[in-house]
Amino acid sequence: MTKPILWTSTRTSGSIVHQMAAASGLDLDIRFISLRKGEHRTPEFLAVNPKGEVAAIQVPDAGVTITEIPAMALWLAEAAPESGLLPKDPLGRAKGMEWLCWCHFRMANTFTIAFQAKRFTGGDEAAAAALKATAATRAREALEFAEAQLVKQASGTVLGTAQVTAPDIFLAALLAFGGFLGVATDDLTHLKALGAKVAAVPAIAAALAREQEIG
Amino acid sequence: MTKPILWTSTRTSGSIVHQMAAASGLDLDIRFISLRKGEHRTPEFLAVNPKGEVAAIQVPDAGVTITEIPAMALWLAEAAPESGLLPKDPLGRAKGMEWLCWCHFRMANTFTIAFQAKRFTGGDEAAAAALKATAATRAREALEFAEAQLVKQASGTVLGTAQVTAPDIFLAALLAFGGFLGVATDDLTHLKALGAKVAAVPAIAAALAREQEIG
Ligand SMILES: N[C@@H](CCC(=O)N[C@@H](CS)C(=O)NCC(=O)O)C(=O)O
Ligand SMILES: N[C@@H](CCC(=O)N[C@@H](CS)C(=O)NCC(=O)O)C(=O)O
Repeated sequence: MTKPILWTSTRTSGSIVHQMAAASGLDLDIRFISLRKGEHRTPEFLAVNPKGEVAAIQVPDAGVTITEIPAMALWLAEAAPESGLLPKDPLGRAKGMEWLCWCHFRMANTFTIAFQAKRFTGGDEAAAAALKATAATRAREALEFAEAQLVKQASGTVLGTAQVTAPDIFLAALLAFGGFLGVATDDLTHLKALGAKVAAVPAIAAALAREQEIG
Repeated sequence: MTKPILWTSTRTSGSIVHQMAAASGLDLDIRFISLRKGEHRTPEFLAVNPKGEVAAIQVPDAGVTITEIPAMALWLAEAAPESGLLPKDPLGRAKGMEWLCWCHFRMANTFTIAFQAKRFTGGDEAAAAALKATAATRAREALEFAEAQLVKQASGTVLGTAQVTAPDIFLAALLAFGGFLGVATDDLTHLKALGAKVAAVPAIAAALAREQEIG
């Protein structure tokens, strides 16, 4: 058996999958590529992931690559059912997927368009500034929604439970993204506690330390 | 047992879930609400889905509501494993989830921001026009990517197979969204064929006819 390969890159959304992979406890071959050096645009990498994006989980024995954060989370969770990345029952797993997809959708229409605003306005600077301003408002709204759900802790929740879940990891990353956008997050105490809890998981702390080292 | 309830609305992304639900063959209680009349903002609906959005699948017996299109697709596929909405093996299911999440992410950062451009620029008209123009370009790129993958028909694909899958249904909807944006799609022959095949599934045709009736 060839080990599955996680292709990722520091300082990108690939870190989210790296953290989930670390929390899974699976023995993966983790390979960092540099977007700055264009390593995601080489024919070799495009053969692995035709999207030319990180993260990607390549399963060489099956000749298949999985991309998109929630799908990689599902694969990791099912390959490591005891990790608690997602609940095992169908309804719980769907609820976990809901949170992963909510984070993913917010990443797309809030953070991605804020961090790369000019790409979304054809280089127009004024339009990019307008986009960025509303993105920060939307980011704050999204984080407030997540905070309120954490406060509520409805039964069957997949957030902030005893074990750190894949949705916890994604949500903690969105909190950090909010900080990068200059969104005030100090009052979001439940989210902050969740972020601290995620970062304190030994395997995740080790993964983050490795990313720091690589830079 | 109380039937699960699908809350949806015509002329919205809720139609995608309505089509998946129809293809699942499950006996659901399908309820249409009117966004124009603000029925998604009533205390009753917010108690079901605090996001105030359609679609949502409420499972009354479990006291749980599932939202986000890929998560609802997963729930439907697992509740109706013979429907073929998603493959049953973990790798195939992750691959299906990848396509669902790819469509969902594109919906968020391409179609949602194009259809509601002014919401994303704080009402600024010029910025909204810039946003809409790049969204159309991105929509075209996304549809071309999907077309190329359909042409390739890599092994283990979850698109355009004998049975219509949840990713097929979502992709067909993105093709239609592209048309609404004025994106040229005539040359995307594989996608067009996929769209026609989805629309021809008797249960989906019936669901779409019911939406037409409601208007
Ligand atoms: N929808 C993708 C997003 C992946 C993505 O946007 N990756 C970025 C890094 S954060 C990337 O590889 N970009 C390369 C490029 O844009 O050329 C996912 O869920 O993984
Ligand atoms: N991420 C959600 C998107 C749902 C969504 O945007 N629904 C829209 C209709 S297309 C809605 O209900 N909007 C109500 C509102 O914006 O007030 C999903 O996957 O279902």
